[in-house]
Amino acid sequence: MNAERLQKQLNFILEIDKEKTIVRQNHLTGMVRSENDAEHAWHMAIMIYLLREYANEEFDLAKAMIMALIHDIVEIDAGDTYAYDPEAGKTQKEREDKAARRIFGLLPEEQKEDLHALFNEFEEGKSPEARFARAMDNFQPFLLNNHNDGADWKAHNVRKSQVIRRQERSKAGSELIWDYTKKLIEENTKKGNLIDE
Amino acid sequence: MNAERLQKQLNFILEIDKEKTIVRQNHLTGMVRSENDAEHAWHMAIMIYLLREYANEEFDLAKAMIMALIHDIVEIDAGDTYAYDPEAGKTQKEREDKAARRIFGLLPEEQKEDLHALFNEFEEGKSPEARFARAMDNFQPFLLNNHNDGADWKAHNVRKSQVIRRQERSKAGSELIWDYTKKLIEENTKKGNLIDE
Repeated sequence: MNAERLQKQLNFILEIDKEKTIVRQNHLTGMVRSENDAEHAWHMAIMIYLLREYANEEFDLAKAMIMALIHDIVEIDAGDTYAYDPEAGKTQKEREDKAARRIFGLLPEEQKEDLHALFNEFEEGKSPEARFARAMDNFQPFLLNNHNDGADWKAHNVRKSQVIRRQERSKAGSELIWDYTKKLIEENTKKGNLIDE
Repeated sequence: MNAERLQKQLNFILEIDKEKTIVRQNHLTGMVRSENDAEHAWHMAIMIYLLREYANEEFDLAKAMIMALIHDIVEIDAGDTYAYDPEAGKTQKEREDKAARRIFGLLPEEQKEDLHALFNEFEEGKSPEARFARAMDNFQPFLLNNHNDGADWKAHNVRKSQVIRRQERSKAGSELIWDYTKKLIEENTKKGNLIDE
């Protein structure tokens, strides 16, 4: 056992504890409080496992799950960027790339490269694992918000077209989940939870 | 797509959102607040990925990760049982079995059986995946507590022998992690963070 190697791994493991304090815009079911990034990633990884039958393509389960678990680690430095905030979106990539270099850089070299590559692959949606994990990244907060009768959309005056633009990206990972999402968008629009302009 | 099947899957996914509100005895790094079960499971699954080289046996990564992610779902009904509370420990198994039947029972039949079997396998430590996941279940809060200079042990007047009894179970999953844990137990005993009777 290489003590220096283990220490690097543990430094990273302790550093990412901070992800539990990165608060997202969406709320838990019942609106008890805002969700944090670690909880979101936990939920996403379980959804990848349970809903994998709806993926467009076959994919490697372990790879998709670890991708989901680590995809928001950069927000420890870069903060959460709300999906429907175009201003924050402009600087998001630069902030997150810098964060990825620092945080994954705590790991031993080959693990740093592994996790950084998984992060980039997720961001770019360039593999079946990334495409399905991204679909779950969209669908997880969507489901919670739908369950909360659109409370977060109403609070932010979100328009139907914005939700479509965001959620239709799920199509690349799962046509079936996107079809189901469309139905729920229509229902929420009828109920007045989304602004139909 | 079978609408009834999907609805069962989504009912389960929404139900387990409650795991985010199950508070544990241990605290996050910096003692900012108590940890919850979903955060603990998220952290554990990443540790399984990053520390897998220290496992005693080869194991299936996806299986060990999903096992870690779901192992505390029963606590939605059964509550968190503190590792060093012998009274609560007596009724733990009965409470958790009942919870497993209700919560996994929300899923379609074969997924119910799959997750319930993974839960039992974890509890009984009867596979390489279960043994390594259980080692991470012990090591994750141990690491946070060690980083917090033993604050949770001091608050509960925990004895060195209690920590050894709990942590030495990690040996079945990783001799190397158990060796490292022993060193940290000695250090914490010297510092007075653990009672040396």
